[in-house]
Amino acid sequence: MAKDKGPRRPRAETPKGFRDYFGAEVTERKAMLDKIAEVYHRHGFDPLETSAVETVEALGKFLPDVDRPNEGVFAWQDEDKDWLALRYDLTAPLARVAAQYRNDLASPYRRYAMGPVWRNEKPGPGRFRQFYQCDADTVGSASVAADAEICAMLADALEEVGIPRGDYVVRVNNRKVLTGVLVSVFGFDPDNLDVSLAALERTMDTKAAVLRTIDKFDKVGESGVRELLTKGRLDASGAYIDGVGLSADQAEKVLAFLTSKGTTNEETLRNLRSAVGSAGIGAEGVEELETIAELLAAQGYGSDRIVIDPSVVRGLGYYTGPVFEAELTFEILDEKGRPRQFGSVAGGGRYDDLVKRFTGQSVPATGISIGVDRLLAALRAKGRSQTDTRGPVVVTVMDRDRMAEYQAMAADLRRAGIRAEVYLGNPKNFGNQLKYADKRNSPVAVIQGGDEAARGAVILKDLFLGAKIAAEASHEEWKSQPAQTEVPRADLVAAVRQMLGQG
Amino acid sequence: MAKDKGPRRPRAETPKGFRDYFGAEVTERKAMLDKIAEVYHRHGFDPLETSAVETVEALGKFLPDVDRPNEGVFAWQDEDKDWLALRYDLTAPLARVAAQYRNDLASPYRRYAMGPVWRNEKPGPGRFRQFYQCDADTVGSASVAADAEICAMLADALEEVGIPRGDYVVRVNNRKVLTGVLVSVFGFDPDNLDVSLAALERTMDTKAAVLRTIDKFDKVGESGVRELLTKGRLDASGAYIDGVGLSADQAEKVLAFLTSKGTTNEETLRNLRSAVGSAGIGAEGVEELETIAELLAAQGYGSDRIVIDPSVVRGLGYYTGPVFEAELTFEILDEKGRPRQFGSVAGGGRYDDLVKRFTGQSVPATGISIGVDRLLAALRAKGRSQTDTRGPVVVTVMDRDRMAEYQAMAADLRRAGIRAEVYLGNPKNFGNQLKYADKRNSPVAVIQGGDEAARGAVILKDLFLGAKIAAEASHEEWKSQPAQTEVPRADLVAAVRQMLGQG
Repeated sequence: MAKDKGPRRPRAETPKGFRDYFGAEVTERKAMLDKIAEVYHRHGFDPLETSAVETVEALGKFLPDVDRPNEGVFAWQDEDKDWLALRYDLTAPLARVAAQYRNDLASPYRRYAMGPVWRNEKPGPGRFRQFYQCDADTVGSASVAADAEICAMLADALEEVGIPRGDYVVRVNNRKVLTGVLVSVFGFDPDNLDVSLAALERTMDTKAAVLRTIDKFDKVGESGVRELLTKGRLDASGAYIDGVGLSADQAEKVLAFLTSKGTTNEETLRNLRSAVGSAGIGAEGVEELETIAELLAAQGYGSDRIVIDPSVVRGLGYYTGPVFEAELTFEILDEKGRPRQFGSVAGGGRYDDLVKRFTGQSVPATGISIGVDRLLAALRAKGRSQTDTRGPVVVTVMDRDRMAEYQAMAADLRRAGIRAEVYLGNPKNFGNQLKYADKRNSPVAVIQGGDEAARGAVILKDLFLGAKIAAEASHEEWKSQPAQTEVPRADLVAAVRQMLGQG
Repeated sequence: MAKDKGPRRPRAETPKGFRDYFGAEVTERKAMLDKIAEVYHRHGFDPLETSAVETVEALGKFLPDVDRPNEGVFAWQDEDKDWLALRYDLTAPLARVAAQYRNDLASPYRRYAMGPVWRNEKPGPGRFRQFYQCDADTVGSASVAADAEICAMLADALEEVGIPRGDYVVRVNNRKVLTGVLVSVFGFDPDNLDVSLAALERTMDTKAAVLRTIDKFDKVGESGVRELLTKGRLDASGAYIDGVGLSADQAEKVLAFLTSKGTTNEETLRNLRSAVGSAGIGAEGVEELETIAELLAAQGYGSDRIVIDPSVVRGLGYYTGPVFEAELTFEILDEKGRPRQFGSVAGGGRYDDLVKRFTGQSVPATGISIGVDRLLAALRAKGRSQTDTRGPVVVTVMDRDRMAEYQAMAADLRRAGIRAEVYLGNPKNFGNQLKYADKRNSPVAVIQGGDEAARGAVILKDLFLGAKIAAEASHEEWKSQPAQTEVPRADLVAAVRQMLGQG
């Protein structure tokens, strides 16, 4: 047995950046994930659950949005001095699985996965070091039909959990189109051409800077991007942001691409074609986008739901083809009460090189990751996350010696499918029992003192009605206690059922 | 983009002692946990999900079955040099939560939790470093009615997941009875009396040795325990096991307790009472067991399901009162084909001192932990774990240009609630598509070549029937292909439904 060795007690605290989830927070998320899993399953995707722990070697250096090796993870050395780490996403473990079991898995391998991931990053308001992701990926299919399927399934999943059509849009772009634009800017493909190492490194730096700048299009607009791509600009705070250093001519090529979004997918595709020309990787990318749009339109996913949008970049370095982003288009109020669009809740794309890290052979793959907490926040904001937050019926204890009878009442209610429990705190103070029932958000309290027991009766107290009366009624009305009724013990279940509106 | 910097590729391997779960392994466990959660919820228990990561300080030194501080956990230092660790069970985080939110939580606080826990222990066959637990606990109730409720709920949960009555038993003991026996053995209560430190330490060592010996009762029987409690014994391998060093008289007191199990709970309680006497902590323990048995019997949980059993010790040092263990009583065949009882699938008890670590105030608590993997293995052994392991209907691709039409077929099937997918590998080799469908355990393949399309028809291949014919039929029968049928495209959904037995 533990004896206090000294006055120092451990702090009862979650570690910094971690949190606990109680009651409805757990069941609401579960209900949402169950619905998404059902959609994925219906599309032929199989569940996969990998362990939380991976070797650092297997995780590799692709931490999303962080281009540095082994940063941002929780890692430790095992007894053999190998480094282990908590997974930071569900894609890296999938790549490991696809390589490890490549001879056993059906190919293509469609899988979904949901669970926590961990990031060793600075926590902030609403930013935690453990959060849920919910992914679906197809490994082993080079066909853009796989990309189209992911987009359609994502739309289905959003509607299934309660985001109505019109309140979301899946935006699609293609890295190849972007590469085509960069080829025409640089005069060669920085990913594939053999130039001097120094020149290549300079060009890769410039490429990364161009991608980062494109990502700011939503924020700074066309003229802002033009300045950032060339000489730089003064930002709102008065600080001078260095430009990427492109010529005006080069910058225009990037802008032609960025501003090619039309009012329909057909118009966007026309604009893109004239921006990247008719041959090379850019044209290949536009053709893929066209096929995706056609496949989706044929299944009823038109530009009201799936939109070709050249400004979608997605931060991850590993995408090689189509990239997707699901955005919720309705407005919510931010912390300061100002309306703003809800924004992105899911993102993904094609990554043909992740499995290659392990096997040396390129394995085509594409997939999507849903930000579970953000989507759940969206459902709550829209009042779409309905789980029954009512607490159990509470059977109070008036007489400790008749505990078995109180337990039998609760058991009777449960057998009828009604959530019920006996008060198990110290029963001395009856007021505490009713306070407890209130705290539990209990709809009904069951009361049986000696008198009622002698009459074979129980008293039922409608706590929701009671609270309403307490809030609105005069003292006299309150004292008449209309929220309280006596019924025969034999009618307990039927009477409670009626009070719960299940009559 | 990643370029191979050298020939060294990362190994695609799960870390030692970890594993992946595929398809039905995931859905079967989920189905079982959903059923258990439903039982817990109906009893008024609320879900709680704590993070995987805790401070080592909060986890404390109570690793089950390991009485040493901070061993057996995966731990690392965070940026502030605080030690963090993966939780090793769900009880330590609950104690932390109960202390951290003690002003906000309803009291008593009934909660359930399910999720992975991690142990940094030597992995072995069937022993992994990450595994699931599923717990229910009541914090803040000193009443043995709370212990009784846990036992009844455990029985309900076992039946709900598919263990029939008669195939399990919940065994109940009480640490207080054991303490009473030890008091009479030592002549004082080692947990509460103030004796010299050296004498106390010797006694605590002896107490621990007595507990360990009692735990061997099932294995070595009455005479074996007698030898081990006194002078020691030769074990089967010929090695000599040192005895605890009790006198014959002291050993008899322990044995009187150990052998007090009768054929009914009433008889056991009578035997126990004569073993511990009529006063003191032992008598208090027997009285508690009696109340538990009465409460349970009144609700219909008789000695066919809940058995008072003095040989239940439970390894954990932190139990202070009633302890429980659920055992499956049916036989399975072990690795060598010999029948053996399935054994324990859940355990728990009352631990009144865990929250006290944080707050200094004793908070009564009791609960149960289900070994999820063992229970699932039991359900599989009994053929009780039924999830639909059929794969999706596979729409094959005969003509790449009509991908949109194949997608539409799959979409039609899904809209009718039928799991379906389009083959998205390279469609060139049709044999590969059928091999894929087999590997997916697909019940039906849908085929539409140019001829069928021109006729407005599709071919449906019953793959289960096909496999049966292939296994049993002659070449001629096989060639007549009775498992294959052509239907109008408009009848696709209805025809597939019929093939799936959903007609």
